[in-house]
Amino acid sequence: MSLSSQQIKRLQAYRQKKFRREDGVFVAETPKVIEMLLDSPLALRMLYALPAYAEAVSRRYPDCRPYLQAVTAKELERISCLTSPQQVFGIWERPHRQLNRADAFQGISLVLDGLQDPGNLGTIIRIADWFGIDRLICSEDTADAFQPKCVQASMGAVAHLPVYYADLARLAADAPHDFPFFGTFLEGENVFEHPLTDTDAWYCIGNESHGIRPATAVLINRKIHIPTFSPASAPHRPHAAESLNAAVATGILCAQIRASGR
Amino acid sequence: MSLSSQQIKRLQAYRQKKFRREDGVFVAETPKVIEMLLDSPLALRMLYALPAYAEAVSRRYPDCRPYLQAVTAKELERISCLTSPQQVFGIWERPHRQLNRADAFQGISLVLDGLQDPGNLGTIIRIADWFGIDRLICSEDTADAFQPKCVQASMGAVAHLPVYYADLARLAADAPHDFPFFGTFLEGENVFEHPLTDTDAWYCIGNESHGIRPATAVLINRKIHIPTFSPASAPHRPHAAESLNAAVATGILCAQIRASGR
Repeated sequence: MSLSSQQIKRLQAYRQKKFRREDGVFVAETPKVIEMLLDSPLALRMLYALPAYAEAVSRRYPDCRPYLQAVTAKELERISCLTSPQQVFGIWERPHRQLNRADAFQGISLVLDGLQDPGNLGTIIRIADWFGIDRLICSEDTADAFQPKCVQASMGAVAHLPVYYADLARLAADAPHDFPFFGTFLEGENVFEHPLTDTDAWYCIGNESHGIRPATAVLINRKIHIPTFSPASAPHRPHAAESLNAAVATGILCAQIRASGR
Repeated sequence: MSLSSQQIKRLQAYRQKKFRREDGVFVAETPKVIEMLLDSPLALRMLYALPAYAEAVSRRYPDCRPYLQAVTAKELERISCLTSPQQVFGIWERPHRQLNRADAFQGISLVLDGLQDPGNLGTIIRIADWFGIDRLICSEDTADAFQPKCVQASMGAVAHLPVYYADLARLAADAPHDFPFFGTFLEGENVFEHPLTDTDAWYCIGNESHGIRPATAVLINRKIHIPTFSPASAPHRPHAAESLNAAVATGILCAQIRASGR
């Protein structure tokens, strides 16, 4: 049974947020990511696979059989979001996650302030999942965690890590008194000298180009800093002091949190 | 004075390693990266800029005037490697860096084993520069540090950080007795529990998909590991144990080296 051109159109439309929203779904590709999602509790809607992979996956994951359709390489090419499609394209129900206000201040949250690049967001989700961070809380204008590029960059970790979108200022207004909200600033304290030992805390990651916005910066009550050790950052070479990229800085912060024993 | 079609062809050819090699040059773009390079000791060959930026840059960097040529937006579009060209395109002489065998074992080196993605390599160069790592030593099949995508991802840090290419096994044969060569392996020691305090050491970063190759793994005498804290990595969810990406792992290792006081 081959795909109708109407089906193909609908599947291609899922590259756009509007149509993913309408149907309450997201898409994923490549055997690695697909299998990570099949191992997750998320609800599978459809799996389109080349015949050889369809057979392999139905053997390893018998539960997916009712949702499995074999397609030709040509059909897969048309529906895939990748330059080189890899055997399989899947559709899952997007989980509905509502942030309970009380939960927002339990454990460790990464707070994303206007992050734009879906690849960066996916990498951050993968890092947060790796380090057992409890959740991501994103400003409403942060990239969509369920867009195809982000799902791929997260290697499927979006299935495990709860990602919420919220008005940060409004949410922060409900924080307990002096709840630790960390953010990186040039004048902040050296993270290598101050262990990050808070059991419950927020850590802010800013936009790739503009960093943390002033409206968010005023909410931050713990300023920290990942120092440079570059000989090139001497005062006569001001441009050498480029900051680390958002995902790398996130990795270092999460590692410091865990190295500090939290 | 406008660019001849022959000039444009030559500039476009620099996207290929062969032609960069022939002329001993590399290219860079965007004001941010261009200015980082103008601040470096590397020798500028030519700068092609839109009139407004040409004026601005010649005021701030008078030394570049003899090499500066104003171009039209259309010309810039043709020579640029970027989807959205940004005001300027520059050509520099590629530095000739010869690795002195004695130097190879002084200070901290990152050793790259077959890293393929120029974006990843550039990000790693930026991280290494940030943390004052002494050099990168790359296997001969690692991506070229001076290809355009890598130069951009490094944010110009290629100008500061020495990057060498070598036969790793042959070079390692000259190492002092028991010289510390670290690499990440699942069975390695937890980096958060074992400070990385060696003053002189090599740290190996493997290929994005295949990790450290067996031929390199046999050279490694200190096995370490960045542990996961993910609840999703429980034994019944084997696929959840995806590793961190190469650049993020590098960032965490470099941070641990500096946090350990080296």
